[in-house]
Amino acid sequence: MTLALPELIRKKRDGGALGGDEIDAFIAGCVDGSVPDYQAAALLMAVYFRGLDDEELSRWTQAMLHSGDVLDLSDLPGVKVDKHSTGGVGDMVSLALAPLCAACGVVVPMISGRGLGHTGGTLDKLEAIPGFRTDLPEARFRAVLGEVGACLIGQSDRLAPADRRLYALRDVTGTVESIPLIASSIMSKKLAEGIDALVLDVKVGSGAFMKTVERARALAGTLCAIGRGAGKRVTALLTDMDQPLGRFVGNALEVREAIRTLRGTGAPDVRALTLALGVEMVMLAGRADSPAAARAALERAIASGAALDRLAQLVVAQGGAASAVLEEALPEAPGRAEVKSAGAGTVAAIDAEAIGLAALSLGAGRVRKEDAIDPAVGVELLCKRGDAVAAGQVLALLHHRDGRGLPDAVRRIGAAYRLDAQGSAVVPRWPTADGPVIEVLR
Amino acid sequence: MTLALPELIRKKRDGGALGGDEIDAFIAGCVDGSVPDYQAAALLMAVYFRGLDDEELSRWTQAMLHSGDVLDLSDLPGVKVDKHSTGGVGDMVSLALAPLCAACGVVVPMISGRGLGHTGGTLDKLEAIPGFRTDLPEARFRAVLGEVGACLIGQSDRLAPADRRLYALRDVTGTVESIPLIASSIMSKKLAEGIDALVLDVKVGSGAFMKTVERARALAGTLCAIGRGAGKRVTALLTDMDQPLGRFVGNALEVREAIRTLRGTGAPDVRALTLALGVEMVMLAGRADSPAAARAALERAIASGAALDRLAQLVVAQGGAASAVLEEALPEAPGRAEVKSAGAGTVAAIDAEAIGLAALSLGAGRVRKEDAIDPAVGVELLCKRGDAVAAGQVLALLHHRDGRGLPDAVRRIGAAYRLDAQGSAVVPRWPTADGPVIEVLR
Repeated sequence: MTLALPELIRKKRDGGALGGDEIDAFIAGCVDGSVPDYQAAALLMAVYFRGLDDEELSRWTQAMLHSGDVLDLSDLPGVKVDKHSTGGVGDMVSLALAPLCAACGVVVPMISGRGLGHTGGTLDKLEAIPGFRTDLPEARFRAVLGEVGACLIGQSDRLAPADRRLYALRDVTGTVESIPLIASSIMSKKLAEGIDALVLDVKVGSGAFMKTVERARALAGTLCAIGRGAGKRVTALLTDMDQPLGRFVGNALEVREAIRTLRGTGAPDVRALTLALGVEMVMLAGRADSPAAARAALERAIASGAALDRLAQLVVAQGGAASAVLEEALPEAPGRAEVKSAGAGTVAAIDAEAIGLAALSLGAGRVRKEDAIDPAVGVELLCKRGDAVAAGQVLALLHHRDGRGLPDAVRRIGAAYRLDAQGSAVVPRWPTADGPVIEVLR
Repeated sequence: MTLALPELIRKKRDGGALGGDEIDAFIAGCVDGSVPDYQAAALLMAVYFRGLDDEELSRWTQAMLHSGDVLDLSDLPGVKVDKHSTGGVGDMVSLALAPLCAACGVVVPMISGRGLGHTGGTLDKLEAIPGFRTDLPEARFRAVLGEVGACLIGQSDRLAPADRRLYALRDVTGTVESIPLIASSIMSKKLAEGIDALVLDVKVGSGAFMKTVERARALAGTLCAIGRGAGKRVTALLTDMDQPLGRFVGNALEVREAIRTLRGTGAPDVRALTLALGVEMVMLAGRADSPAAARAALERAIASGAALDRLAQLVVAQGGAASAVLEEALPEAPGRAEVKSAGAGTVAAIDAEAIGLAALSLGAGRVRKEDAIDPAVGVELLCKRGDAVAAGQVLALLHHRDGRGLPDAVRRIGAAYRLDAQGSAVVPRWPTADGPVIEVLR
């Protein structure tokens, strides 16, 4: 259809619902370039204010999904389940979770993105493993999935190209923080992966896009509705991002954390979150009859070393060396610097975004898409929420290269820690007894 | 200052107030091209939803005003007063009003625009007068103003260039109908004319941008506030555009209506509106002690022929012939076609927009900026609101050239008339005893 764009924009601006044909034509026009950026930007801002109803959202997502290639993995035996995180600081769970679930019989086709700003990206973490390739052709992706049960690659240019154009535009036009736009962006890419089911890790808190449980719950509900509308089984977890996850922020440092999680010696919050997400994936794959049975299977895979072996196999299949996993042969930064506490008290909060920005200053992330990153540098948090701290005690260790970004990182980390000077208040380490998991929406 | 555009857009999107420096930098960036269209479009849509407060609006208007040349007419003796109409159908009042007020001692520097879509533009009407030039250089503009007391020209490229860029963008991004954006666009151009005072004719009804008295009153209030904030005396009238003004819609036809108004033989609604606006202009110019005295002076200027002579002088000074005024030597369309009433009753409403679109079909206006217009064609309304009509009676006469656009125009005009079939209801010809004037905001 020919698209009367000013009328379409005015319709949404005035709170109307866009027709299916109008949505299809708009998304197609974004891909073929016939919709100019300025009209797309105006429509995105109108959607920011007016939202999309269920029918519009489903059509919008399907139009973005079908703007590019859609994988068909139905010829591979097993239930294909992926996990998606909305992005946080120190979140390396995918690296541990994919081989762990594969060791329990789940097929995990995982297509990941790169980090931007204060949040890290799984692809950047994977590439901290020497030789690891994330740009496998489709045939090799299928072969690794078949052999190892998991494969972690990057998004090809042919996957949901409409989303790539719209995402780039949203980033510079103040229209990122819209639940329907976030949800359709995520789901159009996930539905293109050929999965049967999906577990969503929706982050909540200072280090996440969603700052409140209410907003996160709304996003989770929208994501689940789109996925189910497309015939997929979907479970969503709301998890804490009011402090960084685990002990490390930085690419090789987080790979190390993932390896240790599979060894059974990782940080307790990383283990708790990995198991909670794993339980849902195993259940969705039909590999256990109950959450308790799923948990037992996952714990056995860690205790037996099967999960660690599976990670080593995955790394080898994707071009790395087994020693990277088995001996933690990973890049290490030459310098160390301590950040000491000015006062005494109990750690009441650690601003995750500030820690992410400190790691960025050290060179662990990118400000612009074309920036190169240093896989070795990062932040090691020695104290986390709930820990008692004495004046002068080391809060964090900075892994730096030749002092790059050090003054800025030291300043940011000092400011990120908030101490309760009374020392007497009870500061819960995690929002619930289940660690960082706040809520499960099945 | 360097402008962080995504942050600026988010600030407005979230309901914040933009700083003065931010507004200056944004408007400057629109003129020098450093602000891309897509970011300007997103900000305009955010302004559509969030508005601009008084301080932002004043700064925004000043920034647009000073993006180009600002005339200084202080060396010309007399009080300079202009009239601006927000645009309607059949509104040729400027052509009669400028010489009429000049004949009463007001200096009227008038910079006008072209028509687009269903609304006409004063420039197009003036150019229906053979030889009339609207593109005078500034020196000639000043000379005519000094000699005749009025001069009507087009907007130069150097007048408020920021508004030209933003207006073009608003037109295609569904952001036209925003009161602060409309008000700053109008006032940035009017304040650039070097005027001391301004009378605003804010149109209300089906043929106007403002469909309700409430919206029109809000726009009028905003326009007055900006003008007064810039140190100008401003009066606003809300006037009826629920039916076309006068008997003619079309360029040369409307010039004829203006001439007849100054001859004292024009349509009663045109006379009433011209006098009401004239009273305010004469008062603002300090040329009368009371509205009654101002009205008496204006009526004398019509009765004595002084106003008509002044229009003839103006036409001659701008390149036309006195005979165009004195003998109505104007282009005439070769064809006539009648539109007859299907039923009988009293005319309850005439959709002004539909009449404007009918004239457009005949060739009197332009769909795209680059379209050529035919000065001779148009619509002559033989019946107006409140008139009793018999079945088969001629409602309107179409002045056409070789049948161009005739079927479409006939259909539109038939549909534009709404008859009250009872024939017994009292349909007021005008909203008030003062004819088309609904309200005066001094």
